[in-house]
Amino acid sequence: MMDLVTITDVGPRDGLQSQQTQVPTEGKLRLIQALFDAGLPSVEATSFVSPKAVPQMADADLLLPQVKVPAKARLSVLVPNLRGLERAAKAGATEISVVLSATNTMNRKNIAMDLSVATSTCVTVLEQAHKLGLASRAYVAVAFECPFEGPTAPARVLELALRMCDAGAGEIVLADTIGAASPVQVQTLLSALLGHIETSRLGMHFHDTRGMALANAWAALELGVRRFDASIGGLGGCPFAPGASGNVATEDLVLMAQQCGFATGIDLQGLLRAVALAQQMVGYPVGGHSVRWLRRADPRAETLNQ
Amino acid sequence: MMDLVTITDVGPRDGLQSQQTQVPTEGKLRLIQALFDAGLPSVEATSFVSPKAVPQMADADLLLPQVKVPAKARLSVLVPNLRGLERAAKAGATEISVVLSATNTMNRKNIAMDLSVATSTCVTVLEQAHKLGLASRAYVAVAFECPFEGPTAPARVLELALRMCDAGAGEIVLADTIGAASPVQVQTLLSALLGHIETSRLGMHFHDTRGMALANAWAALELGVRRFDASIGGLGGCPFAPGASGNVATEDLVLMAQQCGFATGIDLQGLLRAVALAQQMVGYPVGGHSVRWLRRADPRAETLNQ
Repeated sequence: MMDLVTITDVGPRDGLQSQQTQVPTEGKLRLIQALFDAGLPSVEATSFVSPKAVPQMADADLLLPQVKVPAKARLSVLVPNLRGLERAAKAGATEISVVLSATNTMNRKNIAMDLSVATSTCVTVLEQAHKLGLASRAYVAVAFECPFEGPTAPARVLELALRMCDAGAGEIVLADTIGAASPVQVQTLLSALLGHIETSRLGMHFHDTRGMALANAWAALELGVRRFDASIGGLGGCPFAPGASGNVATEDLVLMAQQCGFATGIDLQGLLRAVALAQQMVGYPVGGHSVRWLRRADPRAETLNQ
Repeated sequence: MMDLVTITDVGPRDGLQSQQTQVPTEGKLRLIQALFDAGLPSVEATSFVSPKAVPQMADADLLLPQVKVPAKARLSVLVPNLRGLERAAKAGATEISVVLSATNTMNRKNIAMDLSVATSTCVTVLEQAHKLGLASRAYVAVAFECPFEGPTAPARVLELALRMCDAGAGEIVLADTIGAASPVQVQTLLSALLGHIETSRLGMHFHDTRGMALANAWAALELGVRRFDASIGGLGGCPFAPGASGNVATEDLVLMAQQCGFATGIDLQGLLRAVALAQQMVGYPVGGHSVRWLRRADPRAETLNQ
């Protein structure tokens, strides 16, 4: 039996949140539906942040109840604090994510909290989510490098990850928020964590800023990690911000995983339909490094849907 | 001391050969010079093929004598047969490459020879090059997958590689000509070869058609391979042929190798100058997945030139 790689598409949240064009709720629903139709087992749909801070996510309360989640699939939403958790629960969330940046400066710049306050906030939200019977994921952001403080110490990431585990987080997602990691840094960080946290509970979230996202994913796969975030079409880069780059593209990661003998349950032709839809939503060309090839590949090819 | 990764930039040959725009000899010389200025230890400059078959390389005899090769750097040229070798030697070549496709159909389509005839031709050229005192590299093309015959058996690649070794090839370069490999296929092929051919004699030539070139390079690095081809700016994809894709970009491979603690002797800012020049030559935007980031990165950053 093939090993299963579980991919969470964060395109509707991480991919869309920085878009200049306001994507209508109906468009977001179609995109989420297209992802589930392609076989995605998990989608991060939206974020219950302040509508003032992130106008693109202002429709979270309206959107969530309208999503049709297939049996066995998961739908998560990001919540920054108890207020967000309350809104998410009211809108029918069954799984939430919290984000904790690993450095003081990143937390201050991002959410105007010290690391210690940010940590307590995440702990409180996770504990409350647990009481409400919601599943949870906890991101450790800038887990490899912080744009303000430089390389992040693996010991710090381990400490924060264990705090989140203790608070009841079902999954810990190590996020290379600015896309600074290399395969060796992936090995170093994972080596520091793997003795302390079950591999099955760890996920990786890579951005492709330096083009190394797939190589990093391969390094993590080699160490037994089987959970990954990805974003349809590589959504998340802002076309107006030179150098910014999106998540590893779902289609690229699925293609590599499948060719490497892993099961994903995801259909690449279905992903291409979702890429086309995502492109329509944001109004500029999107797509991972493999899309040109995928578009002309024979959909019956062995490597496409094995 | 850091392990050294030796990169051959094949942009001036593999990258330019399929370009629609005829690049003037003077432009090619400037590009080769820019690559050496950036610290490339090895460049494949041109190809002594029939000018009718590949008009872009028709100036090989004129170009080669004009290249200024720095001390300790290497300059190789591709030769398809004894006639090409003769021309190359006359023009002052010190190192030649031969290309042997691993399948019968690919050889027939590419050079109108059976595999056996193509093999003998390469053997003859390598032996003659050896007599002339020239260094040599031998490519095994479509070493992973052939567009006509499907997956290539590692045993076949091993057999052909050993023939080339016996004929005096200094290096064996395993070429993923159509960019079909995944990291697992890299591991499989290398596992079949590593007991029989010294790792130090093996090189890898990846194309990025499916976006996996860097992941494949990482898989090869993990198995001890330290020689790679790459192409400045990822040159080699034809902008008019949807789905076609160039070699792994030199700047992407150098950045990954450096971040992973390998020495390359190559300066990334120098590579950006070569990317700009390559773009001027071909007349459309080129650049690896990392160039947007590299262009705005601080040239003094630790990860850039460690």
